[in-house]
Amino acid sequence: MTELRQAFLHTRAESLRFCEPLVADDYCLQAEPFTSPPKWHLAHTTWFFETFILKPYVPGYRPDNDLYEVLFNSYYNGVGEQHPRPRRGLLSRPTVDEVRHYRERVDAAVVLLLEQDDHDDKDAIVERVVLGIEHERQHQELFFTDLKYSLAQNPMHPAYSDATSAAIGQTPDQHWQRFEGGLVEQGYSGSDFCFDNELPRHRYYLEPFELANRLVTNAEFQAFIDDAGYQRPELWLADGWTVVQEQHWQAPLYWRDNNGQAMEFTLHGLQPRQPHAPACHLSGYEADAYARWADARLPTEQEWEVAAQQASGPDVSNRNSCYHPQPASGDNGLQQLYDACWQWTQSAYSAYPGYRPAPGAIGEYNGKFMSNQWVLRGGSCVSVQQQLRASYRNFFYPVDRWQFSGLRLARSLQPE
Amino acid sequence: MTELRQAFLHTRAESLRFCEPLVADDYCLQAEPFTSPPKWHLAHTTWFFETFILKPYVPGYRPDNDLYEVLFNSYYNGVGEQHPRPRRGLLSRPTVDEVRHYRERVDAAVVLLLEQDDHDDKDAIVERVVLGIEHERQHQELFFTDLKYSLAQNPMHPAYSDATSAAIGQTPDQHWQRFEGGLVEQGYSGSDFCFDNELPRHRYYLEPFELANRLVTNAEFQAFIDDAGYQRPELWLADGWTVVQEQHWQAPLYWRDNNGQAMEFTLHGLQPRQPHAPACHLSGYEADAYARWADARLPTEQEWEVAAQQASGPDVSNRNSCYHPQPASGDNGLQQLYDACWQWTQSAYSAYPGYRPAPGAIGEYNGKFMSNQWVLRGGSCVSVQQQLRASYRNFFYPVDRWQFSGLRLARSLQPE
Amino acid sequence: MTELRQAFLHTRAESLRFCEPLVADDYCLQAEPFTSPPKWHLAHTTWFFETFILKPYVPGYRPDNDLYEVLFNSYYNGVGEQHPRPRRGLLSRPTVDEVRHYRERVDAAVVLLLEQDDHDDKDAIVERVVLGIEHERQHQELFFTDLKYSLAQNPMHPAYSDATSAAIGQTPDQHWQRFEGGLVEQGYSGSDFCFDNELPRHRYYLEPFELANRLVTNAEFQAFIDDAGYQRPELWLADGWTVVQEQHWQAPLYWRDNNGQAMEFTLHGLQPRQPHAPACHLSGYEADAYARWADARLPTEQEWEVAAQQASGPDVSNRNSCYHPQPASGDNGLQQLYDACWQWTQSAYSAYPGYRPAPGAIGEYNGKFMSNQWVLRGGSCVSVQQQLRASYRNFFYPVDRWQFSGLRLARSLQPE
Amino acid sequence: MTELRQAFLHTRAESLRFCEPLVADDYCLQAEPFTSPPKWHLAHTTWFFETFILKPYVPGYRPDNDLYEVLFNSYYNGVGEQHPRPRRGLLSRPTVDEVRHYRERVDAAVVLLLEQDDHDDKDAIVERVVLGIEHERQHQELFFTDLKYSLAQNPMHPAYSDATSAAIGQTPDQHWQRFEGGLVEQGYSGSDFCFDNELPRHRYYLEPFELANRLVTNAEFQAFIDDAGYQRPELWLADGWTVVQEQHWQAPLYWRDNNGQAMEFTLHGLQPRQPHAPACHLSGYEADAYARWADARLPTEQEWEVAAQQASGPDVSNRNSCYHPQPASGDNGLQQLYDACWQWTQSAYSAYPGYRPAPGAIGEYNGKFMSNQWVLRGGSCVSVQQQLRASYRNFFYPVDRWQFSGLRLARSLQPE
Repeated sequence: MTELRQAFLHTRAESLRFCEPLVADDYCLQAEPFTSPPKWHLAHTTWFFETFILKPYVPGYRPDNDLYEVLFNSYYNGVGEQHPRPRRGLLSRPTVDEVRHYRERVDAAVVLLLEQDDHDDKDAIVERVVLGIEHERQHQELFFTDLKYSLAQNPMHPAYSDATSAAIGQTPDQHWQRFEGGLVEQGYSGSDFCFDNELPRHRYYLEPFELANRLVTNAEFQAFIDDAGYQRPELWLADGWTVVQEQHWQAPLYWRDNNGQAMEFTLHGLQPRQPHAPACHLSGYEADAYARWADARLPTEQEWEVAAQQASGPDVSNRNSCYHPQPASGDNGLQQLYDACWQWTQSAYSAYPGYRPAPGAIGEYNGKFMSNQWVLRGGSCVSVQQQLRASYRNFFYPVDRWQFSGLRLARSLQPE
Repeated sequence: MTELRQAFLHTRAESLRFCEPLVADDYCLQAEPFTSPPKWHLAHTTWFFETFILKPYVPGYRPDNDLYEVLFNSYYNGVGEQHPRPRRGLLSRPTVDEVRHYRERVDAAVVLLLEQDDHDDKDAIVERVVLGIEHERQHQELFFTDLKYSLAQNPMHPAYSDATSAAIGQTPDQHWQRFEGGLVEQGYSGSDFCFDNELPRHRYYLEPFELANRLVTNAEFQAFIDDAGYQRPELWLADGWTVVQEQHWQAPLYWRDNNGQAMEFTLHGLQPRQPHAPACHLSGYEADAYARWADARLPTEQEWEVAAQQASGPDVSNRNSCYHPQPASGDNGLQQLYDACWQWTQSAYSAYPGYRPAPGAIGEYNGKFMSNQWVLRGGSCVSVQQQLRASYRNFFYPVDRWQFSGLRLARSLQPE
Repeated sequence: MTELRQAFLHTRAESLRFCEPLVADDYCLQAEPFTSPPKWHLAHTTWFFETFILKPYVPGYRPDNDLYEVLFNSYYNGVGEQHPRPRRGLLSRPTVDEVRHYRERVDAAVVLLLEQDDHDDKDAIVERVVLGIEHERQHQELFFTDLKYSLAQNPMHPAYSDATSAAIGQTPDQHWQRFEGGLVEQGYSGSDFCFDNELPRHRYYLEPFELANRLVTNAEFQAFIDDAGYQRPELWLADGWTVVQEQHWQAPLYWRDNNGQAMEFTLHGLQPRQPHAPACHLSGYEADAYARWADARLPTEQEWEVAAQQASGPDVSNRNSCYHPQPASGDNGLQQLYDACWQWTQSAYSAYPGYRPAPGAIGEYNGKFMSNQWVLRGGSCVSVQQQLRASYRNFFYPVDRWQFSGLRLARSLQPE
Repeated sequence: MTELRQAFLHTRAESLRFCEPLVADDYCLQAEPFTSPPKWHLAHTTWFFETFILKPYVPGYRPDNDLYEVLFNSYYNGVGEQHPRPRRGLLSRPTVDEVRHYRERVDAAVVLLLEQDDHDDKDAIVERVVLGIEHERQHQELFFTDLKYSLAQNPMHPAYSDATSAAIGQTPDQHWQRFEGGLVEQGYSGSDFCFDNELPRHRYYLEPFELANRLVTNAEFQAFIDDAGYQRPELWLADGWTVVQEQHWQAPLYWRDNNGQAMEFTLHGLQPRQPHAPACHLSGYEADAYARWADARLPTEQEWEVAAQQASGPDVSNRNSCYHPQPASGDNGLQQLYDACWQWTQSAYSAYPGYRPAPGAIGEYNGKFMSNQWVLRGGSCVSVQQQLRASYRNFFYPVDRWQFSGLRLARSLQPE
């Protein structure tokens, strides 16, 4: 229990620590409906603990404010109505201070509840606190991606961090690593936490394939652009080409041209674009088009997972204060699996055979999103590395570009 | 000069005083493109002095930040590009503190300039400082209407002011006041400041008419609703009926039903609706439909002005801390001309015969808006009363409802 | 009565004659919601007689098909529901033949009714038949403008008429004609038919002004374009500039560039653009911008009417088979008042003092459109010249370009 | 070759035969961008032969009209520009007669080419003629679904066929048929024609499952509605629930209530809804929600194909003049595989392992649509039965409802 309480308190404290560099004016920023303001993330993660743990398991629990149930509900129809997503940035009240107070009050109640060793629902409580921690870790990543998107709207190029973003490094040449496939197993198999969409573990038949040792770099993506990649419909999926035309895409989301100098907007402000750093903030369509141009393809999520099973997991020691993906540094094996950019796969996000979501509102966590989205695998420089693993499935629409999403190439092979 | 400096400093101080009740989270609120955040109003009014006075008339003037020219330009194409209006709320930087500093720096420079009695452009400077003061007074009113609109999006019903909003009064019965018309004069005729759209003073031929002594009340407007006013197309202009259908209008903008209790959102929070207070936050279409239902019509702006010429002007002494229109209190003459709600006229906003806008960017102030808008006359409970007068022309689209806009009835008469 | 019956039958026959050049595929063409298909015009004008004359005044009248009441109702809410305007082109049934049959049946019934000299409602019947004829004449003009718009969508440039469009003429130089103004009278004063919006005749005070003797030509409008007219915001009303940006206007609606050759799409197909012909298919915004560029302005509708009162009326003898405006040919007085293009005025379409629409659904004819539109005066090459007169008020939104709308310049003067 | 020529001529003739019941007014009907007018289908299928066979393989081939290359190109960017899809209904020229002439001319040229046994590209020509025939068969189905959608917009409920639609039958009870799965093979394996998306045949690992013997019926779907199926978000995918809300879905696309009588719009006009006929014109979201409500799920495309491999193929003898799905009639095995409604699967449309589209523009046929769409399997009452088979993959967006799309339930099983 001590361990869980510590994980809980540490995670809760991290959310606040990440807000430290903000100015008061930043807390309500919401540039598009798909992003959420920092203050809303702070409140919603608290709401999750209150709604799914305190209300059902603390007899007589009285919330601070009944309206919070609506204001900070993201998408749980089973809980009830939701404040409209595009209008989260208009909630100037409760104030940041009131939200901090809300966090403190909920934290204290959760800690008290965890201390009740004889609670009838002890197991359910522990399970849900673990889920709430993982949920908050996911929102910590969204905090960074949403904030970056909102700051990017400001012509003043505000920086979240004043530290330097760029270890100006070389990256190893791209080469291919072969995998034989066959009848493999996929899905989570350990005894720690995993999300329901990683289950059940099941068999899958894979043809032989190979994966690139590292992610596609900015320099490589520039070559695609120089070769008229954004002007050639034959390189694109039809839906992707429609988006390119309608939104006038010419480059990845945060690339900027500063009087001829290649720049990139980062959480460290506007910075020179590093040729060896991975191309980041790509949509699935751009990743797919690049792969076709390179006479390759995106991996399937099964290919990625099988390959990652054979590699070492995320290294939690390297968490630092850099909020931008760095060039690959190693020479052996698959680089940049978890610490640079999420990697688009060609796999539509769908249920594993035999998948069952949890009953009730909490079952809305993953299952209802299983249409029209693509799976991304790995992790990014702003992920909480503790929650990453080979079986973790991230998912976004192929049009989405505001995540730290990049690209690892794959190719089909003939059996040896 | 002392008088002008004092007016300048007083106006500048008022903008800050009006912000005192805000919390930090309120400064970037922008609920719709047609509203602007409080911080932006503070910066834009400053930009106006910097752009039209300091830059042209202070040799070697150096702005704090070159980007402000774009960020805080509202619509002056002659000055240059503008930050997109719908994204003013995303400017978390400059911070509120930086904007306050910007104000101080510009204020000091303007005061210094005003002290240069031998400046070659003394007359132009004075003229533009006067215009800048009037401009800021207009934005002080917009500050209130925009803020009200944004706060109204919040289900918590935040109040700008904790004072009570409601002098629960009786209002006198409606009766008609007759005017003979004939060949009248319209437009500003004094020697103080007026806007260019009030000029030139010119003749106009009016048939006999009569005006209601006071504005239409909430109780009267409720009778229109009860008589299916929002369901009967024959009462509406065609464009208005389209809006009613598309936006599902059923009542004035801020009317709320609280479990059967008639309420109204105000700058004092959610309050019981006062039957004798004027119906407020009406679109031009609603005002027009009500008038048709009441077998009357909206006045023309010429009728309103001729009638107002014969009444006393706005009473600047009664400015108080109530931000909501009150019931009419007097018995004689035309009540509520300037201090309750703006009054929709049926007149499209257009140029007076012989109208000439000022040359250059400053000429964009009024003239380019002379299409598709309607004239409102009078003033409201949040207007700066010093700038109101019989010839003042306010103008908004007939679909607009977020101003303090109400309705005074008119009727045509046969000559006696 | 014979005269009325003949006018009725002639007008009804004209609608069919205008359809003779069509192919079967043309009858359902509807390129935009604001246009209507030829078949729909044929049916709606018939519906008008059936709804407002046969149903109320022929006892026991039984319609062919009850659904027609909905299908061919344009906008009369007092009659009932309407088939959605944007979906008129989807009515492949009734077929063209069935609509022709519908016309024949209604025509016969109207003629029979007109022969009943002792009908109790004789006067009302006559009045409404006259209105129905005028109504159909208006739709005959819309038939041409709507058809032109729809044909223009086809890259094959289909021609309505194979006749040549162009009397390649010279046009006289532009010069100004002076009018003294003063207290004038406006509105219809004769004893024949007029629309309710031309009444009541009333007094209006006008300052001195002058009007151009002819319309602005293609060559003159080209000079505006060459002077970057579409790129200079200071020439445009704010709402117009927004449209220019959003819709990427660069030239009048039907101007085409054919490998460097100046062309224009006409009802005679794609034709070389005649420099001396009037610039046509201008929006009100373009007309206004041109006038500002030319250091002039649009006339008010009062100015236009006073000037037209002093000129000769439309010449009904010159109706020919040319469906495109021709260069002015005369030297004296105001040219092209009625036979080339409608002329935008700066006047918003609104009610004359004392205006009263007819009671009931027929009162929706004009009055409910009195917002957001501008008045055009005169007539065009596709107008039925018999219905034109100095007091006739046409009205469209300033954004509209698909009518034969052009521009006559005006200027204000000092009193002599 | 005789056989191929006959198949070609037969298919070409069928397209014209299907048009026989049309009236002239129907040929340009296009109710939504996703549907195409009958005339356009006639022209586009001809364009396909002209573009991919005549132009490359007939030396000196001269098209009737160069514009047809643009007008009748659907989506082949490799060929060049396309007339905008939403404006296909505005092409009143070429006329229907001209399109028939175009067909005749191209048909004659193809037949001539097929007779050239010594043509250097004989194999490629044959391959492309076969593809062109299959392509036209697909458009024959789209002809019916598009036409039905357009006719349904007309309140007169026009019928394509006057024949009766309904064999009022009983349908057998639903029961489950078990399949063991394991390492199966998927994809086309024969020696006749198949589309590139059915290749390569490859292995797939399946868990045990069961499928319903027949499709879900109208009566069963009514029970879902009666149980508030369209009001319960927990039954829906998140994207589907959004559509339900935005488009106010309450029932399948063509269900109508006629004063309390359950009706359905069909190609035979408005008809009483048959309780035992399959629920048709469902979106993928509705199919998925129904399955969840029924405690089942949609099959994967692999499950469907494996099951269909064990059943008999489509029966080409039963093609009749009924254009509406009929109740299942048999008792044994899987009913309604090919002749009633397409069956939604839960599988996103994607590339088989090792998939390679054809080079050049013809490679745009299938591959570029592999995102955001779902696979449907089987066939429908308006499919050309000769082209159906167990490996055939149809694909539409899950929001689409205008195809004859229904639902067969599936369930996961434990291994025996």
